Amino acid sequence: MKTEGMTEDEINARHAEKMAKKKAARDKILATKTLQKGLLIVHTGKGKGKSTAAFGLVMRALGHGFRVGIVQFVKGRWETGERAILDKFADQVTIRTMGEGFTWETQDRQRDIAAARAAWEAAKEMFKDPAYRLVLLDELNIVLRYDYLDIQEVLQGLAERHPDNHVVITGRNAKDELIEAADLVTEMTMIKHPFRDGVKAQAGIEF
Amino acid sequence: MKTEGMTEDEINARHAEKMAKKKAARDKILATKTLQKGLLIVHTGKGKGKSTAAFGLVMRALGHGFRVGIVQFVKGRWETGERAILDKFADQVTIRTMGEGFTWETQDRQRDIAAARAAWEAAKEMFKDPAYRLVLLDELNIVLRYDYLDIQEVLQGLAERHPDNHVVITGRNAKDELIEAADLVTEMTMIKHPFRDGVKAQAGIEF
Repeated sequence: MKTEGMTEDEINARHAEKMAKKKAARDKILATKTLQKGLLIVHTGKGKGKSTAAFGLVMRALGHGFRVGIVQFVKGRWETGERAILDKFADQVTIRTMGEGFTWETQDRQRDIAAARAAWEAAKEMFKDPAYRLVLLDELNIVLRYDYLDIQEVLQGLAERHPDNHVVITGRNAKDELIEAADLVTEMTMIKHPFRDGVKAQAGIEF
Repeated sequence: MKTEGMTEDEINARHAEKMAKKKAARDKILATKTLQKGLLIVHTGKGKGKSTAAFGLVMRALGHGFRVGIVQFVKGRWETGERAILDKFADQVTIRTMGEGFTWETQDRQRDIAAARAAWEAAKEMFKDPAYRLVLLDELNIVLRYDYLDIQEVLQGLAERHPDNHVVITGRNAKDELIEAADLVTEMTMIKHPFRDGVKAQAGIEF
């Protein structure tokens, strides 16, 4: 805002006018948004915050009293901090941890494929049940990337879910077909990371 | 992975070899990360998930039993879902809501400046106290963008905080000076948004 030569009153008046216009524009847009449906949400990109934002959505849904399903395609992806919280909502949340570890830690492709298949079957069970207002498929993208599950089969399962179910899928390298099918896609981009400066993973931040 | 003409056993063997190399490289990198310090984290960009990921970090810290401080620079930014959860951790979390509403809803610049100043003073109180392992300054970036607070004053306050305190700052249009000072910066980019298709804000997803 260029304010040289303006009095404080003039700055305030111009600000009020500008904000009134913004509010009118925003209200007009909101009035056109009337549809309600289960959303397919994807968090991808190389930056941090994909699973953390999904965890935030889970907590928000739990706060509303909703039932939530979580399927972890990579074991150990969620750590002590999250587990301690989720344990407090055991009556609202169902967690299925099917992966056997990061794929680069197991080095056993057949076992990883079997785990991915079992996790996907657990997800499809949740899709049938309208009680699950939110289903989180954590790190499904990594499984799709390695072709442990067929993308077309996954898209079909998502399309056949109960129409009220919101689904959140996380993981870098989301497939184009998934992005195409999704309602809301956010890419987390890493601008700066403390690992570069030799800082180690810390409780409460990384796990 | 090009797998034409390979047997299933050959594919599995090559996969195991590739993953073993990845794991070795990753372990080597992790061994060099030994520093521990309070991080300055920024979530910016026009996409969704900035405050939601911060809320996820808050919940993770609460799961570890840490004390958490939250300063909301824009009132009403966090809604019923989050509040219902945070109320369950009232003994661990201190919330100071200082803003009077989205700036485009108040249209009163002087009142917004006073609210921003009060919020910043609350944040500085938390910075002095090592008990606050995590301090969230929600939507501080919007306040800095409108120059309601001076960026240099904010940077100085951040630099003077207790060295163990992690700080998370959210909001689009993070100032370059803040990005420069931060340890970890994630930009949330909107790839796709259901608003485009007329879908309204829904409980558990938007609030």
